[in-house]
Amino acid sequence: MLTFQEAIGRLQDYWASQGALIWQPYSEKVGAGTMNPATLLRVLGPEPWNVAYVEPSYRADDGRYAENPNRMQMHTQMQVILKPDPGDPQERYLKSLEVLGIRREEHDIRFVEDNWESPLIGAWGLGWEVWLDGQEITQFTYFQQAGGLTLDVPAVEITYGLERMIMYLQGERSVWDIQWDATHTYGEILRDQEIDYCRYNFDFADVDRLLAMYDLFEGEALLALEHGLVVPALDYILRCSHTFNLLDARGTVGVTERAALFKRMRDLTRQIATVYLEQRERAGMPWAGREGLTSVQAEQGTLLHLPMGATGVQDAAAANVPLAGCVPFLFEIGTEELPASHLSDALAQLRQWVPQELDDLRLEHGEVKVWGTPRRLTVFVEQLAVRQPDEERQVKGPPARAAFGTEGRPTRAAQGFARSRGVDVTDLEVQEIDGGQYVVAHQSILGHSALEVLAEALPQWVAKLHFARSMRWNATGVAFSRPIRWLTALLDEQVVAFSYAGLESNRVTIGPRPAGSPRVALASAGDYEPTLASYGVIVDPLARQADVLRRARAAAAEVDGQIPDDPGLLEEVTNLIEVPTAILGGFEDQYLDLPQEVLIAVMKKHQRYFPVLDAGGKIMANFVTIRNGGQEHMDLVRQGNEDVIRARYADAEFFYAKDQQQPLEAYRGGLAKLTFQAEIGSMLDKSRRLETLAPWLGEQLGLSADELTALKRAASLAKADLATKMVVEMTSLQGIMGREYALLSGEDPAVALAIAEHYLPRSAGDSVPTSALGTVLALADRADSLAGLFSVGMAPTGSADPYGLRRAAAGIVQILLEKQIDVSLRGVVTKALAQLPETPPDGTLDRVLSFVAGRLEVALRDMGLAYDVVAAALAERGDNPTLALRAAQQLAAWITRDDWGYLLDNYARCVRITRNEPRFELLPDNLVEDAEKALYQALVTAELQVSAASADPAKSRDLGESGVDQLMAAFVPMVPAIQSFFDKVLVMSQDEVLREARLALLQRVAALATGIVDLGRLEGF
Amino acid sequence: MLTFQEAIGRLQDYWASQGALIWQPYSEKVGAGTMNPATLLRVLGPEPWNVAYVEPSYRADDGRYAENPNRMQMHTQMQVILKPDPGDPQERYLKSLEVLGIRREEHDIRFVEDNWESPLIGAWGLGWEVWLDGQEITQFTYFQQAGGLTLDVPAVEITYGLERMIMYLQGERSVWDIQWDATHTYGEILRDQEIDYCRYNFDFADVDRLLAMYDLFEGEALLALEHGLVVPALDYILRCSHTFNLLDARGTVGVTERAALFKRMRDLTRQIATVYLEQRERAGMPWAGREGLTSVQAEQGTLLHLPMGATGVQDAAAANVPLAGCVPFLFEIGTEELPASHLSDALAQLRQWVPQELDDLRLEHGEVKVWGTPRRLTVFVEQLAVRQPDEERQVKGPPARAAFGTEGRPTRAAQGFARSRGVDVTDLEVQEIDGGQYVVAHQSILGHSALEVLAEALPQWVAKLHFARSMRWNATGVAFSRPIRWLTALLDEQVVAFSYAGLESNRVTIGPRPAGSPRVALASAGDYEPTLASYGVIVDPLARQADVLRRARAAAAEVDGQIPDDPGLLEEVTNLIEVPTAILGGFEDQYLDLPQEVLIAVMKKHQRYFPVLDAGGKIMANFVTIRNGGQEHMDLVRQGNEDVIRARYADAEFFYAKDQQQPLEAYRGGLAKLTFQAEIGSMLDKSRRLETLAPWLGEQLGLSADELTALKRAASLAKADLATKMVVEMTSLQGIMGREYALLSGEDPAVALAIAEHYLPRSAGDSVPTSALGTVLALADRADSLAGLFSVGMAPTGSADPYGLRRAAAGIVQILLEKQIDVSLRGVVTKALAQLPETPPDGTLDRVLSFVAGRLEVALRDMGLAYDVVAAALAERGDNPTLALRAAQQLAAWITRDDWGYLLDNYARCVRITRNEPRFELLPDNLVEDAEKALYQALVTAELQVSAASADPAKSRDLGESGVDQLMAAFVPMVPAIQSFFDKVLVMSQDEVLREARLALLQRVAALATGIVDLGRLEGF
Repeated sequence: MLTFQEAIGRLQDYWASQGALIWQPYSEKVGAGTMNPATLLRVLGPEPWNVAYVEPSYRADDGRYAENPNRMQMHTQMQVILKPDPGDPQERYLKSLEVLGIRREEHDIRFVEDNWESPLIGAWGLGWEVWLDGQEITQFTYFQQAGGLTLDVPAVEITYGLERMIMYLQGERSVWDIQWDATHTYGEILRDQEIDYCRYNFDFADVDRLLAMYDLFEGEALLALEHGLVVPALDYILRCSHTFNLLDARGTVGVTERAALFKRMRDLTRQIATVYLEQRERAGMPWAGREGLTSVQAEQGTLLHLPMGATGVQDAAAANVPLAGCVPFLFEIGTEELPASHLSDALAQLRQWVPQELDDLRLEHGEVKVWGTPRRLTVFVEQLAVRQPDEERQVKGPPARAAFGTEGRPTRAAQGFARSRGVDVTDLEVQEIDGGQYVVAHQSILGHSALEVLAEALPQWVAKLHFARSMRWNATGVAFSRPIRWLTALLDEQVVAFSYAGLESNRVTIGPRPAGSPRVALASAGDYEPTLASYGVIVDPLARQADVLRRARAAAAEVDGQIPDDPGLLEEVTNLIEVPTAILGGFEDQYLDLPQEVLIAVMKKHQRYFPVLDAGGKIMANFVTIRNGGQEHMDLVRQGNEDVIRARYADAEFFYAKDQQQPLEAYRGGLAKLTFQAEIGSMLDKSRRLETLAPWLGEQLGLSADELTALKRAASLAKADLATKMVVEMTSLQGIMGREYALLSGEDPAVALAIAEHYLPRSAGDSVPTSALGTVLALADRADSLAGLFSVGMAPTGSADPYGLRRAAAGIVQILLEKQIDVSLRGVVTKALAQLPETPPDGTLDRVLSFVAGRLEVALRDMGLAYDVVAAALAERGDNPTLALRAAQQLAAWITRDDWGYLLDNYARCVRITRNEPRFELLPDNLVEDAEKALYQALVTAELQVSAASADPAKSRDLGESGVDQLMAAFVPMVPAIQSFFDKVLVMSQDEVLREARLALLQRVAALATGIVDLGRLEGF
Repeated sequence: MLTFQEAIGRLQDYWASQGALIWQPYSEKVGAGTMNPATLLRVLGPEPWNVAYVEPSYRADDGRYAENPNRMQMHTQMQVILKPDPGDPQERYLKSLEVLGIRREEHDIRFVEDNWESPLIGAWGLGWEVWLDGQEITQFTYFQQAGGLTLDVPAVEITYGLERMIMYLQGERSVWDIQWDATHTYGEILRDQEIDYCRYNFDFADVDRLLAMYDLFEGEALLALEHGLVVPALDYILRCSHTFNLLDARGTVGVTERAALFKRMRDLTRQIATVYLEQRERAGMPWAGREGLTSVQAEQGTLLHLPMGATGVQDAAAANVPLAGCVPFLFEIGTEELPASHLSDALAQLRQWVPQELDDLRLEHGEVKVWGTPRRLTVFVEQLAVRQPDEERQVKGPPARAAFGTEGRPTRAAQGFARSRGVDVTDLEVQEIDGGQYVVAHQSILGHSALEVLAEALPQWVAKLHFARSMRWNATGVAFSRPIRWLTALLDEQVVAFSYAGLESNRVTIGPRPAGSPRVALASAGDYEPTLASYGVIVDPLARQADVLRRARAAAAEVDGQIPDDPGLLEEVTNLIEVPTAILGGFEDQYLDLPQEVLIAVMKKHQRYFPVLDAGGKIMANFVTIRNGGQEHMDLVRQGNEDVIRARYADAEFFYAKDQQQPLEAYRGGLAKLTFQAEIGSMLDKSRRLETLAPWLGEQLGLSADELTALKRAASLAKADLATKMVVEMTSLQGIMGREYALLSGEDPAVALAIAEHYLPRSAGDSVPTSALGTVLALADRADSLAGLFSVGMAPTGSADPYGLRRAAAGIVQILLEKQIDVSLRGVVTKALAQLPETPPDGTLDRVLSFVAGRLEVALRDMGLAYDVVAAALAERGDNPTLALRAAQQLAAWITRDDWGYLLDNYARCVRITRNEPRFELLPDNLVEDAEKALYQALVTAELQVSAASADPAKSRDLGESGVDQLMAAFVPMVPAIQSFFDKVLVMSQDEVLREARLALLQRVAALATGIVDLGRLEGF
């Protein structure tokens, strides 16, 4: 059996053999190996740096008094930094696991997206958690920034969680039981200390003294920085950081303090990073260019030659390009594991524009197939022309008189033009173009070979792919979702030769990880899919998704269970694997006492397992996980996954029990520590605002006195669960736990329901609250968020929307529309703004309303309403989504009428002629002609019909009235009078009195639509 | 080449293979691996604990801004704890060196006494520095106490200094140049940081903030302790300790603060130790009895069979014991390396009592030889009787009348007695003993074999050896200077079988370390010396000493140099080695610019090298070191030693240059930080007292006004050099550097000389000051120390004399005697006491004087004066050593006179008869008899002759007068009158007036000696 200490020794030996420097744990308490200067500082600057070290890492909040099988306030990391990227860091990492006896073919080892960020030290990077049979054993990150500085050279950071890994290796169910050496268990060495630390951290540490220490540490850090003393300054920042963690564990850091402390630490770290770089610069960056990691050539693996004989490894230069016809084309971008959402996104992009790109390249092609797995983005075209067609092209030259002299001799201009076009000057002709005489040349352009054309195009295709967040990994500075590691491009049997991101395209693809990522040379493009299929890889994502679902259902069926519908989870799981195999696992019945939502949330959030439900929809003590790999060693993988979920549920059980020790109301106080937004205050402040805003809105919407009382209670408790351990751990359970704990605390069920429902809809397509209380609270909460955040300048910009305000606005719209609530947004937002601690800057109200109107427009468009119809409705009814929807829908119906053009024309004539005139008062006595008198009469009749609609929309509660239908019903009878008026009356009379009377009359006609719809926005107006 | 990180890896692997747990560096800054809880706590209690770990150790004061080749504020330790002692820890350690490529046969590896103590953590232990070719590379300690608690099981602590060892292995002259891995040097990784830390520690750290931190840390430590949280409390104590080190480096800790801080940390550590043990006890000491270190049987080594065939490994039980005659006897106590002084001491003890012990055992013997080396204490007797002689013995029984009934029948008492003596009751006889009739039995006792007798005696011999400080090492709890590892006891060819300290005696001795400590079975006792000699071991210490001297001289002669006489060094060096080989080394001429005393002090103190002087007595750029081992690889060993002395001199050069940046006077302020004694104050306080006391004494002794001015200056500067870096580093240079720096600072040469001389005599036998100023200052300094320390109860007790007060008192005596200074100690001490900050407790003056008188008595006795003579002189002149000496010497001469008995008798008659009487006034008119009148007349004459002497001795400056000679010269003529008086006069007359007159007369005669000598103390009085 491999002991804890042997595992450490082997990893150190392994990384040393790779060329890494072996460093020691740091002499200060750190939360992670990242904070050791061997990482935090050394990743900066251009110099190579490869290092490995153990780091006991202290995170007070993770303490569980040694009662959890694998969560502790101190855990041991093995930290590895590889800078620059050696090109094959994942492979090196997997070899390190082999050194420990973890063979990839026996397990399910996965790279699951994890974007790491430590605002405290101004650092972030993209990468993965590495899962071993469901257990997170390593963080693998491409560092992009540290100390607030962008890294000159991205660094690979590999952080092993040693305890969990060894626990697994030793087949123990608790870290406390693993063997440290032959004589002692881990628990024997560290358990007492763990408990003591937990007691200190949570129960006893003196807050005032910690705060005082913090200030002293910070003072010394600044002092050291003033004198340019890098590491001494860092030591004190690390102490600040640890002290902060202790304060946090004691639960006594208020919102303002927290933000301030964080900012101070971040600023200090940035200063240190800067001073460190200056120090290295003064030293002349002595390591730059020095050999770093042992540059082991990436191992060749199995090079499988499919039947094409000796040509298999030849490249395009030496090969025959067919002169005509169509052949298969393959382009594969081989990557390290793409995040699930990035994969979906990239596939959508490729599907969208690859066919067009091929068209633009003038390459005839059949169906374009776009495939992908976490490690590959593939374009496959069964039939692609090997050449562009030849083309005759006429090119316009200089004007004829400039091209030929008075005697008809070609001038130097003509000669130059001919030369530039590759034709003889005698072949130039003169043609009339756009009314002028020009010289033209006729070119006969040979089509280029597809190999050439594609060689130029493919790098641009890669570059054109964009991602929500992308990263750099090597010296080329190229950015992508994750590092690109190979490029396979074959036109039939020929390699499409190009280079990108430091790679040369070739014919070699790479098989799946469980098979050892074998390098496989493809004889031809057509071999691609069958070759990967022979390894079990299903490259077509839809086929893979179907396979996953089929397997998952089959697995669930083993226990007569069912997999609930969850398209998001299904897509994500599909995107996490290449070779799907379903495994049914189980867990102890005792955990079924936890709320079902909790059980499912844990499975989904942490493990991407499918829950298994019985016929009644009740969760069973089972789960289905989809392994990336085949049927081998299934028991091992199952066992591993079961151990993981057990630890997760033990944690959830711990939270659930802890949380119930107090009524929900008691957690409300804890909201003071949760920042909503620094300038607007804490979550407690938000709760207090809701206690005013929600009842006000409820009154607007006609709730009863009893309902209003319950609503106020619900508002007061709505956010309380955010301070419970369960929700702190899993935010997705917010509201759900609130309801749960509210009921357990004896609250009115209506209150509990409102708490849960006020988060609805969570996303587009989600359902809206069912209850009146939940509805009002949901609206109030979102209105408060919008008002508050806009007032402090936190409106979303570009793609950035950290507070989810687009979702909030869309939620308001969705609720109002679905519930057909007739309310003025202006009224609500005005009230919400009034609750804020500071008077909002001028224009805030309009900015919020315009932002919500934007969401409303999208929502209406998404319902299939034409853009001009939507615009017409919004122009007059944007403040009230329900009325706007009604107007747009009615208008859309009117537009389909045969006589619509006639009607609109007549209305338009009235509007257009008056549009640039000032407003005049209509004095009927000044109307003299019959036709105008008749129109006036018709107008008065119509005005009476739409009067309800023309009033303030906020006052018209009855949705049945005052709509477009009323307007148009009143307008249609007027049309003859309008026509007669324009036929017989000269509007622009020389007589000012007559002219103003007639204009005023038409203005009144135009104004019939005011407050209902702006027909002027319609097409054809 | 072995890199730094590879060396660490190999050591970890090696110790892991031995069964040690591999632990990590601590998450707090520690001064040494000892402070890591894996040592500090785990050594406590009965449980086994074996651990190895790296520990970067921070000692601010050792920082040199990276300018020294091997001194840094951070160095890297490899810490190993073996508990319990595995029996062969040195051998395991030496094997660990072999793992690094350090083969013992190629180097000079030595275990040099080093007694480790950390009062801060209440810990101490005995052991060694391990030297590799002169370089200290490891501390090897048997931990005896930690956290103020005596260890249940002593623990072996091995602390490697990794940088120095690797520097040596890589052949580098500076740690900054060693290769950390293949790509980076140590300096590249750590040099910038080292400089930054030095600047922070020495130049910038904010003292107020550090003090504030200290208090906060202490507060949290106490808080954690209150709740029984062991490691959290320790963390804060470690922070206290590190903070204290920083404060110290900043040079701002005053005497009071220092003592207080130290005490506080010590108290806290003791509390933690206690709480830790309680924690383990609650847990039931789960590891107790568990297998710890891999119990590898100590390797056999070469078992050399000397010619005795198959009987070589038989033991005494099966062997024939010769029935008569004498054979050789060998007893060797094999030990780990004894401290040099312990070796000398043990040999002296054995020489003193072994012959007597053999006599007491009734074993006839020839000359007893006592030999020894650092690893063995040997008794060898060429001729020892194999048996005790038989003996006839008469045993006294019960009184005859109890033994035989009235009818002469033996009673039960007689029968019991006979039975107990193994004789028949009829064989009992009756004899008169001491005037009574007793039954006696005649026993014929056969002599026991020497094997039996010795088997019983030898363990007692070992137990009887005592040492200045001894230690325990294994479960037997036996104490000795250092662990005993083997016991060789042979009587001729037979093993004297016994066991002691867990060992069985046998015939196997162990050869010297350089030969790999081979186990050698001795055929017979007589083989011992030649066998060890064949390995180069010279067991006879005198022979070895002669050999060392001869070799050292020969080596020095290679450069025409000489070895200065230094018996202490010669003895120490002889005691450090078994196999002497001299090596001549050199160093760079530049270092000859340092003061010669510095050069020599460095050599002696740190390296035990012999300096080499030229014909003029000036030091040369050479040294001689005595290696333990043969001629092999001499260049390697020389090179190593040269590297060491270079680094030492570089350090000295650094100190010397730094110190000269300020005049000597400037260092005086630094004395405020040096505690003299907590209650009496700092060294600065002492200096100030000397400024008063010395001139006062100078005036007493008749110094001129100019001299007094210089004396005051000297007193003011006398201690200033204690604050210089050089003296802080090497205390033995105190005074020497003071003079040096005084001269460099332009002080009066007389002042400079006095500064140097006031430390004289440094020890018994050392010379006294030559100058008057030095003499007075030396006296004043010692008087102040005695007065001050006695006044706060720090008088020496038993063997403990931490402040060297015996030496101080002896120094006063020696100076006064050698310089024949006539001064009243009472006067001096009274004045010294008056200077103290607090009024001393009653009786202090007398205690000091009595203590000094004790030293004076020893001094006089050491001059060969008889004890009674000394007592007689001291009784009257103890206050003035010079007069006391004179009195004793004169008295000693008188005693040798033939008529001395007669003279003394007559004096004694006068004294004895009056001794128990009250004092009477002599009224001459009441004397009536002629004889008494004549005696009165003689008395008056004599009194006139000794009058000068009878006055207050403090007033009699002229040493020529008032001595014993004057007394006796006056007394001799009185004798006839005394005789006549006693013949003719009845002293005890019934007439009270007569009687009192006569007694008064005799009392006056007796009082002639008052103030001169108390003849009543003489033998025969």
